[in-house]
Amino acid sequence: MIKIAVDAMGGDFAPKEQILGAMKAIREIPDIEITLYGDESAIKEYLTRSERIKIVQSEGTIDMGEKDPIRAIRSNRKSSMALSLSSVRNKDNDAVVSSGATQALIAGAHILVGRMKQFKRTAIAPVLPTASKKQFILLDSGGNLEIKPEFMVQQAYFASIYAQEVLGITDPKVGLINIGTEEGKGRELDNEAAKLFKENSNINFYGNVEPKLILDPPADIMISDGFTANIVMKTIEGTAKGMGTMLKQELSRGILGKLGLLLSVKNLKRFKKRMAPDEIGGAMIYGLKGVVIKAQGSSKANGFYNAIKQAAHVVRQDVIGKVNAIIESEAPTNEKQ
Amino acid sequence: MIKIAVDAMGGDFAPKEQILGAMKAIREIPDIEITLYGDESAIKEYLTRSERIKIVQSEGTIDMGEKDPIRAIRSNRKSSMALSLSSVRNKDNDAVVSSGATQALIAGAHILVGRMKQFKRTAIAPVLPTASKKQFILLDSGGNLEIKPEFMVQQAYFASIYAQEVLGITDPKVGLINIGTEEGKGRELDNEAAKLFKENSNINFYGNVEPKLILDPPADIMISDGFTANIVMKTIEGTAKGMGTMLKQELSRGILGKLGLLLSVKNLKRFKKRMAPDEIGGAMIYGLKGVVIKAQGSSKANGFYNAIKQAAHVVRQDVIGKVNAIIESEAPTNEKQ
Repeated sequence: MIKIAVDAMGGDFAPKEQILGAMKAIREIPDIEITLYGDESAIKEYLTRSERIKIVQSEGTIDMGEKDPIRAIRSNRKSSMALSLSSVRNKDNDAVVSSGATQALIAGAHILVGRMKQFKRTAIAPVLPTASKKQFILLDSGGNLEIKPEFMVQQAYFASIYAQEVLGITDPKVGLINIGTEEGKGRELDNEAAKLFKENSNINFYGNVEPKLILDPPADIMISDGFTANIVMKTIEGTAKGMGTMLKQELSRGILGKLGLLLSVKNLKRFKKRMAPDEIGGAMIYGLKGVVIKAQGSSKANGFYNAIKQAAHVVRQDVIGKVNAIIESEAPTNEKQ
Repeated sequence: MIKIAVDAMGGDFAPKEQILGAMKAIREIPDIEITLYGDESAIKEYLTRSERIKIVQSEGTIDMGEKDPIRAIRSNRKSSMALSLSSVRNKDNDAVVSSGATQALIAGAHILVGRMKQFKRTAIAPVLPTASKKQFILLDSGGNLEIKPEFMVQQAYFASIYAQEVLGITDPKVGLINIGTEEGKGRELDNEAAKLFKENSNINFYGNVEPKLILDPPADIMISDGFTANIVMKTIEGTAKGMGTMLKQELSRGILGKLGLLLSVKNLKRFKKRMAPDEIGGAMIYGLKGVVIKAQGSSKANGFYNAIKQAAHVVRQDVIGKVNAIIESEAPTNEKQ
């Protein structure tokens, strides 16, 4: 049995959607057990089954807009987020899924789960949809604003294993987010990272990729420093939102247009759903001793279910063990640096 | 009369669209004169008027994919791009408009037009559409990949004057592109820039803006270093393109859907046009001794006309003179640094 800790109190629609998602996961995935961390009486309002699912009472909560995430975790050791993270460290569970505040979850994961030995900088890596119906991994979406290129190499290992084992992509390609495709484009960081990726036999390096291909990228993994990749993610979000508004404004013009809009409602909903992150699941934090998945704060039951499914798959495929094997095989080289 | 130099040979559809755009500009804008730089026989195929418009013969061309832009300019001094830039330096013209290769144009502008005294780093600044039908300036979209915060302050002056005098925005707000809105978010560069913007009485600083508001920003000017802003611009382009593809895929599903699509064609075209940069005009290079406007490489006649109109307006409003006045008033402070 794969044991999953669910932070039932984190997220815009907690605990309801988290619990509905967890119950769906129990129904759909036969080899998992779930522990819900949160307020027992609030959870019981929505929880209608007990098979392979149990509750652990928590105390206090982590505010979504927490300004000092490290303090938030340290002073709320019995919050649902902290308890679920600690349960992975204690081996009570194999993975944790939370829709709670990203920065608090990253801080909490460092403090309560711990970093993999030799893995220098953790990364947070969402999986995004493309126009060609494939998926790609974007990293580091906010973990480390400034980073050394050799640490990006470790993150690329993790993403490659993840893409292969969890997304089922054979020999996944790594693309470096850059302002031009030619070799030598970009900042010093980009040039050094490109050089290291190219030389490394554990990475299938595609080369530089401009974000004007961001929704149909020629690589399966798109990597940059945490500042840049976060800016890319938020620009995708902002453009999608802005275009949605413009589309609504334009499509409702004229009588024929209004009729056309009416007939297109179903298709437009499907379009909206494709852009909605709820369909995709969560973002994994790479480089920890345990599996920590950040589900969207705005997750509904289905999105949260997808994040649990993803967590179970990461455990099943022993992603962390496989990454460890590569990193450890390189350890002597690392120490020489 | 405002005298505009047009590089007739640069761009995907040159010289045809450039000449059609120039002729439209002559028809619509009474106080301008245009000199077309290019191949006289090629130009004459499309040029059907001679009032306030003349031709200067050029030799050789700047390749659009030029890898060494400085050499491209130095070894093609009689190309249409080089001649039109030189004509501004020589005061034969007040402004130049070109759809030629961006990097070559920036390099050429430095060599042949020259930087404003005291203005440390030029910037390239497109004007982008928003969902609320306003516009905003994005800079620096590719001039300087790495930059000191004090040079970003000068660029913000230029953008503020431009927004006021050319876009007609009263007391334009400057937003710093960042990964969070709270003070202290981002890299060291972002924090230092925010501090300088806040202290400066010539800048109306709004604060940090996340790009998830990029198509409906609360500021009129969105600024970052050249790497980040270029990544933002290309991510907008890539998301718009990817969403367009997805929309097409989804809208044509089902019989009712197909009928809906048919009735919506006109509105969808209008939507596409709103996202098309051709409607917006060009990107100005800030910080030069003369007015240099980069029109999109893919400009059609109307887009190129808009860029000429914009160039004339920048001259008419004496944008460079006004920026110079601020920078010169600060010159002693700058020298102390």
